[in-house]
Amino acid sequence: MKKIIGTSPVLSPLPLLVIGTYDEDERADMMTAAWGGVCSSSPPSVAFSVRESRYTYENLLQTEEFTINIPSAAYVDEVDYFGIASGRKTDKPKVCGLTVEPAPDVHAPMIAEFPLVVECRMVKTVPLGSHLQVIGEIVQILAEEDVLDENDNPLPERVDPILYDPRGRTYHRVGEEIGQAFNAGKKFQTTVYQI
Amino acid sequence: MKKIIGTSPVLSPLPLLVIGTYDEDERADMMTAAWGGVCSSSPPSVAFSVRESRYTYENLLQTEEFTINIPSAAYVDEVDYFGIASGRKTDKPKVCGLTVEPAPDVHAPMIAEFPLVVECRMVKTVPLGSHLQVIGEIVQILAEEDVLDENDNPLPERVDPILYDPRGRTYHRVGEEIGQAFNAGKKFQTTVYQI
Repeated sequence: MKKIIGTSPVLSPLPLLVIGTYDEDERADMMTAAWGGVCSSSPPSVAFSVRESRYTYENLLQTEEFTINIPSAAYVDEVDYFGIASGRKTDKPKVCGLTVEPAPDVHAPMIAEFPLVVECRMVKTVPLGSHLQVIGEIVQILAEEDVLDENDNPLPERVDPILYDPRGRTYHRVGEEIGQAFNAGKKFQTTVYQI
Repeated sequence: MKKIIGTSPVLSPLPLLVIGTYDEDERADMMTAAWGGVCSSSPPSVAFSVRESRYTYENLLQTEEFTINIPSAAYVDEVDYFGIASGRKTDKPKVCGLTVEPAPDVHAPMIAEFPLVVECRMVKTVPLGSHLQVIGEIVQILAEEDVLDENDNPLPERVDPILYDPRGRTYHRVGEEIGQAFNAGKKFQTTVYQI
C-alpha cells in the first residue's frame, strides 16, 4: 500500500550538469542544472531546463551555443556554488579557482578540471511554466584520457560524477555496478505469453 | 588536454524510468526509458523520450496518461527486460511475475513492487529526430512508507534506484552521500569578484 507524498518532483537519480556560456562581453558563466539529460539518440541531443530570468538564458539568446560540463565528486562544493550564485554579479569560476578554457568546437567556455565536456548547439526551446527547456544537439564530446576505457567510453568509477536527489536535496556518488544493459533481462525472453 | 570521443551521448548518471501505460484493451504495458528526468518545477513536470514506433507511444495517443515507476536495484533484470521486449507481443509484467495495479489518480498501470510511482498527464510532445519527447505534469506521487524519512521524502539509500551509464551500457547503484544542496557551496560566498 503506497502513501501519497505530493507532487514535488522525486525522480532519482538526476545528473548534475554545469552549463557553460559566454556573455556579450565574452565573460564565462557557469550554471548548475539538475533538470536535464539526454533526450534523443539521432541526432544526439540533450536537454536542460533554466528559468528565463537566469543569466545563462540571456547569454544563450545571443550565442545559441553552450557546454555541459560533468564534474567529479571532488568538486561538489564548487558545483553547488554554481547553483546558488548569479553570474550577473560574480565571476563564479574565478571565485572557485577553476580554470576556464574556450571549447574548441562551439562558442562557449568549459572547465578544464572537469573530466567530461559535451559541446552543444541550441536547436529548440520549449516553454514549460517556471522553466524553459533548452534542447541542444551534441557537436562534440571531450574527455580526460585517464577516465576512458580502451573503447573511449568514460568509466563511471573514474569520472566519479555527482548525482542529485531533489526531494532530500542531497548529492551522492555513483555506486557499484549491478548489471549490463540489454543483457541482464535476456533470461526472461525464454518465457513468452502470447497475446 | 582533453580527447575527442565522438557524439554518442555520455551524460551520466541517468535515471532508469519504467513508463506504465494501458493499451486499447486495458492491458498494462511497461517500457524502460533512460532518456528522461525532471523538466520544470511549477507545474511539477517530467519528460521522457520514446521512439514513435513503440507501443507505449501508441498507447499514450489514446490515454494521454502514464506512470513513471522507479525500480529498486533488486529489479535490475526485470527493468532491463522491459527495455528489450515489446508489449505488442508480450505481457512483460506477467513474464517477470510482477504485480500490476491501476494507479489511483490517472488511467495508467503501476508496478506494486517498485517503491515510487509518479502519476502523470501528458501535456506536450516535442519531435526531436529519432525520439519524441513526452512532457507530463505530475498529478500525484506515491511511495512505499518504508522508503520515506520523517518529512515524507524518499531516502535514496532506501529507494535504492538504478542509474544507467549510456556509453558503457552499465547499471549502477547510488553511492554515498557527499553533500547537501544549496549549502555545500556557501563557503565560496565570502569571496566576491565584483563585475
